[in-house]
Amino acid sequence: MTKSLPPLTLVLGGARSGKSRYAEALVEGQSGRCTYIATAEPGDVEMARRIAEHQARRGVRWRTIEAPLDLVGALERSSESDGAVLVDCLTLWLSNLLGAERDIAAETRRLVEVLPHLDGAVVMVSNEVGLGIVPANALARAFVDHAGRLHQAVAGVAQSVVFLSAGLPLTLKSSS
Amino acid sequence: MTKSLPPLTLVLGGARSGKSRYAEALVEGQSGRCTYIATAEPGDVEMARRIAEHQARRGVRWRTIEAPLDLVGALERSSESDGAVLVDCLTLWLSNLLGAERDIAAETRRLVEVLPHLDGAVVMVSNEVGLGIVPANALARAFVDHAGRLHQAVAGVAQSVVFLSAGLPLTLKSSS
Amino acid sequence: MTKSLPPLTLVLGGARSGKSRYAEALVEGQSGRCTYIATAEPGDVEMARRIAEHQARRGVRWRTIEAPLDLVGALERSSESDGAVLVDCLTLWLSNLLGAERDIAAETRRLVEVLPHLDGAVVMVSNEVGLGIVPANALARAFVDHAGRLHQAVAGVAQSVVFLSAGLPLTLKSSS
Repeated sequence: MTKSLPPLTLVLGGARSGKSRYAEALVEGQSGRCTYIATAEPGDVEMARRIAEHQARRGVRWRTIEAPLDLVGALERSSESDGAVLVDCLTLWLSNLLGAERDIAAETRRLVEVLPHLDGAVVMVSNEVGLGIVPANALARAFVDHAGRLHQAVAGVAQSVVFLSAGLPLTLKSSS
Repeated sequence: MTKSLPPLTLVLGGARSGKSRYAEALVEGQSGRCTYIATAEPGDVEMARRIAEHQARRGVRWRTIEAPLDLVGALERSSESDGAVLVDCLTLWLSNLLGAERDIAAETRRLVEVLPHLDGAVVMVSNEVGLGIVPANALARAFVDHAGRLHQAVAGVAQSVVFLSAGLPLTLKSSS
Repeated sequence: MTKSLPPLTLVLGGARSGKSRYAEALVEGQSGRCTYIATAEPGDVEMARRIAEHQARRGVRWRTIEAPLDLVGALERSSESDGAVLVDCLTLWLSNLLGAERDIAAETRRLVEVLPHLDGAVVMVSNEVGLGIVPANALARAFVDHAGRLHQAVAGVAQSVVFLSAGLPLTLKSSS
């Protein structure tokens, strides 16, 4: 049975909380094609292994787009015929933007402006990173702050927001 | 429309989870004056900027009291004419107490004894810091333990406890 | 009044979130004996103090079994006459397994295979450690990943899963 997705869903969760798998199931529950927008760069061995794991799990209905920096452009170029779109994940995108010394506030605004005008349903995955001890490292602290602001901004325009722990969802926001 | 607050509300959340903004909205939803008890010390540039941001967001109805150490005294001195009180935040207070080598268990007991006897509604903000990897640093580990005990103690006497993520509240305890 | 427990309950929470106390109360709410399976090794002073605190809190109905590595064996040897069983905690077990260079994936599989076939009700406590910044240290990162996978696996066969913050439970999964 297909459960219809709202235009925008945000799936938050910790490391290995099952958030990617949960988000994939939401997208696969839709009819038609599925589009995977990967923000990861297969730059190191560990990351390459994780990307391969993710790809092996997904089937032939899926098309993959790599967008380590231009997530907004990739979303704008997607059309209704691409089916539901999975973005995995926002924290890696943020990390890539920081590495490329982009203006995070401007990129966050661009994203939030584009999201309400897309054709298909979008599910975005992101790591909740702000619930541990405040990092001593200033860069890590800045990352946590950027991630928190980004999550608030995206959650503000999403119709559905869930928080995953141990593979199980808690509803933070629901359109129904 | 004004939604009446219970005597004590605890707002927990991670860094940049929107907890201060959420707590401010609760307090501003009450009629009359609003009192802000700031536990921060504007000791460094980053903190001074954050305090200025918070003040810019709050309007003329607000009175600010600085209480980096004597939070309990500041609460005792508040009266019904001060309106609803916002305490932002408990983790900074804890950090200041540790810096001043105060007895944390005794301060926590004093706070919990005073809270049920205050005139106006109080909303307390605090950082959830215990959901990351256990810190290797013994001081950081002690801080996490103190924060967890303080949260349990305050939640025990609160009528309402919410957990914020991405600016959205999950109800942990509700008086209604 | 006794509230009947399902066969398996998982209690997740941060450091000092009240998860052990909450889990103990669930087990003590059952009639008959209570069995405590401790995965901690009293190897350092801090840990010895915590174990002593836990033991002082528990009463004469409790029997304690130490199982720093052979948790699965300890569970298999428990029988209905042992009453409800508390396992505290999975993250320490994981830490001990890593220290002993055991195969974590194999141990997780063994545990998940045994859990559905036990006689009495079991309540397992574990630390949620994946909601802070991703650790720079590779070992810590691996630990977070292992813990997340273990939680997902146990939650998958549990009838009840709760997430504790400030001593208060959020229901992640419920059999009723």
